[in-house]
Amino acid sequence: MATVKLWTDAEVEANPAVKAVFDDIRATRKSDFVNNFWRGMANDPAHLARVWGQLKEIMGGPGALDPLVREMIYIAVSTANNCSYCVHSHTAAARAKGMSDAQHAELVAIVGLAAQTNHLATALQIPIDEAFEVKS
Amino acid sequence: MATVKLWTDAEVEANPAVKAVFDDIRATRKSDFVNNFWRGMANDPAHLARVWGQLKEIMGGPGALDPLVREMIYIAVSTANNCSYCVHSHTAAARAKGMSDAQHAELVAIVGLAAQTNHLATALQIPIDEAFEVKS
Amino acid sequence: MATVKLWTDAEVEANPAVKAVFDDIRATRKSDFVNNFWRGMANDPAHLARVWGQLKEIMGGPGALDPLVREMIYIAVSTANNCSYCVHSHTAAARAKGMSDAQHAELVAIVGLAAQTNHLATALQIPIDEAFEVKS
Amino acid sequence: MATVKLWTDAEVEANPAVKAVFDDIRATRKSDFVNNFWRGMANDPAHLARVWGQLKEIMGGPGALDPLVREMIYIAVSTANNCSYCVHSHTAAARAKGMSDAQHAELVAIVGLAAQTNHLATALQIPIDEAFEVKS
Amino acid sequence: MATVKLWTDAEVEANPAVKAVFDDIRATRKSDFVNNFWRGMANDPAHLARVWGQLKEIMGGPGALDPLVREMIYIAVSTANNCSYCVHSHTAAARAKGMSDAQHAELVAIVGLAAQTNHLATALQIPIDEAFEVKS
Amino acid sequence: MATVKLWTDAEVEANPAVKAVFDDIRATRKSDFVNNFWRGMANDPAHLARVWGQLKEIMGGPGALDPLVREMIYIAVSTANNCSYCVHSHTAAARAKGMSDAQHAELVAIVGLAAQTNHLATALQIPIDEAFEVKS
Repeated sequence: MATVKLWTDAEVEANPAVKAVFDDIRATRKSDFVNNFWRGMANDPAHLARVWGQLKEIMGGPGALDPLVREMIYIAVSTANNCSYCVHSHTAAARAKGMSDAQHAELVAIVGLAAQTNHLATALQIPIDEAFEVKS
Repeated sequence: MATVKLWTDAEVEANPAVKAVFDDIRATRKSDFVNNFWRGMANDPAHLARVWGQLKEIMGGPGALDPLVREMIYIAVSTANNCSYCVHSHTAAARAKGMSDAQHAELVAIVGLAAQTNHLATALQIPIDEAFEVKS
Repeated sequence: MATVKLWTDAEVEANPAVKAVFDDIRATRKSDFVNNFWRGMANDPAHLARVWGQLKEIMGGPGALDPLVREMIYIAVSTANNCSYCVHSHTAAARAKGMSDAQHAELVAIVGLAAQTNHLATALQIPIDEAFEVKS
Repeated sequence: MATVKLWTDAEVEANPAVKAVFDDIRATRKSDFVNNFWRGMANDPAHLARVWGQLKEIMGGPGALDPLVREMIYIAVSTANNCSYCVHSHTAAARAKGMSDAQHAELVAIVGLAAQTNHLATALQIPIDEAFEVKS
Repeated sequence: MATVKLWTDAEVEANPAVKAVFDDIRATRKSDFVNNFWRGMANDPAHLARVWGQLKEIMGGPGALDPLVREMIYIAVSTANNCSYCVHSHTAAARAKGMSDAQHAELVAIVGLAAQTNHLATALQIPIDEAFEVKS
Repeated sequence: MATVKLWTDAEVEANPAVKAVFDDIRATRKSDFVNNFWRGMANDPAHLARVWGQLKEIMGGPGALDPLVREMIYIAVSTANNCSYCVHSHTAAARAKGMSDAQHAELVAIVGLAAQTNHLATALQIPIDEAFEVKS
């Protein structure tokens, strides 16, 4: 159960600002399916437009990283932030972009390893090596 | 300041179990530099060997993901877990493996975006779409 | 499913220490409804009394912040800590204290934005400006 | 030490896209001081513009929440996400917007209390009460 | 619903590498029950073996800490990291190792208190006392 | 640098409410040293008294867990919550209560392992086994 209403397609149709974003989501993804996240975000049309615009640009625009790599980074952050919804939606998105079972397994292993060494470094309060400093 | 002693090279030399791991770190990385994390881990030689072995296998072994992609996933998790030491050490490692400024900038933007939508999905308590279910 | 028993009203009635706290919760909130959190906390009557006393004082006592503002801060922390139960209960509490949809939408947007910049500042390891120092 | 270069005013002046954002930051805040966060963000001018635009709109635009309340929510999230930089910068910003010592003390107490009950609810795995469900 | 397939006993039987680990889990725990975590981990047999081997050694091997104390530390971390699955499985494991209701209640209270003071120290950005420094 | 003033002994002496708590801290710990956390908390005397009272009772009162075990649980939570100050202060406290290097090393290894499996369970979104349910 959400803390806000999830908009139905009929409700979306009745609100031009929300409909414009949903139309763009559908056109960009070449799919009629719009997931619950956007149906919850629809309660704040201006914010919906801003977040979708940002996501479209960062995840889908031209860039130096492969779209699948971007999705895997997204899964990594979502796991560390413990967002069940996001782990599910971005794992599905990565699979749709071609992530193999082997790639998923490696991603998961790296996330677990990083979490382990993150906690070890924190428990031991390791000071940062001078060698890691960026020279301005 | 760490919560444990950071081992000097002389101390490492005097402990065969620790020396074996440090020798392998140096050989694997083709560099004499061993960063503080391992000098703190040296206080528990069996754990040191286990964590290094795991890291060597997951980050350096053959696999479906490019070594640079692995480092970027590591940075993403370390940032979300807020481990300053790890952000520094793995950003340096990724640069050593060829990460460009443009790739770093995209990585950073994705991490920020994912964190934003993670928090939005949590604040709104969005229920997981059936479409995301894995069919066993 | 909880990791402890959730006390029924009959069980509460039979334990004077727990009953005293539940009576105070009902009197303070002017409502018969006592939510599951307190029914789980009832397993440790002394801790129940301590946590309730603290919450009553901090959230309900006289102070410099409006009670609704206090609830919104509570939601913000609960979201960042990813406590589903707490996001639900305090969003309901904030609505009961008059939070409008517009206020909720702004709160959610700020939480998302703060999470984004939190992660950006961590990824970039931005050093704290001298201008932010408190002069003792 | 940051993981990226922090841009000096001279470097900002030499890049029109970055200069435009810095000019807007200075004009919006009616102050010449631009803090390190933006100097690190300057390495990715498009992202800099996007994040600043979003922050300006959410934190400074017209809305249902008082600007000081917005800053306090920001501090709450930054504390729970453990971003030292952000705690410092937004505590300073809140003070500049009139936050009194008493208001700060209450904010801090609420953050601590929420964190405590967040962890208690998680440790006990309290199920969400039906009463908290949103009716669509 | 998981993001990967959960292996049935029949599937485990058909894969020698996975079967070897499951056999060891059953022999070590003196129980036929193998919980879902391992059924999900089975998708990556090498990683399954590595994580189980590590867990068996750290949680079950000889050492300076009582096995029940180890489980309680595990619950504490799992709560702070907000892993519902892990809170459930390790609370059950601790009870199976003899954790009393009183011990559980104290554990829960300490977790809540630590979270509170963690957030207070972060909100106030308390500098580390020199007295806490480790002398190398 | 803190976000609040750290009270000197002279300032403490001049405020009876704060002095009473500091006197109790010194008497309880049988030491003149009062660490920075309490000097920052002194800015809100009522909150100072409440948090100290709670800590004294939970960490120092009679109970089912050994005081050293309580400190180690505290360190585990503080590490997972990434509170540098708290990791330092409670590691020092645990050592003062007799924590050996071997116990510390085991604690650290468990924290790292738990973090790893926490993240793995989250990445795989493992459903909770029915066997872990508490029967009310």
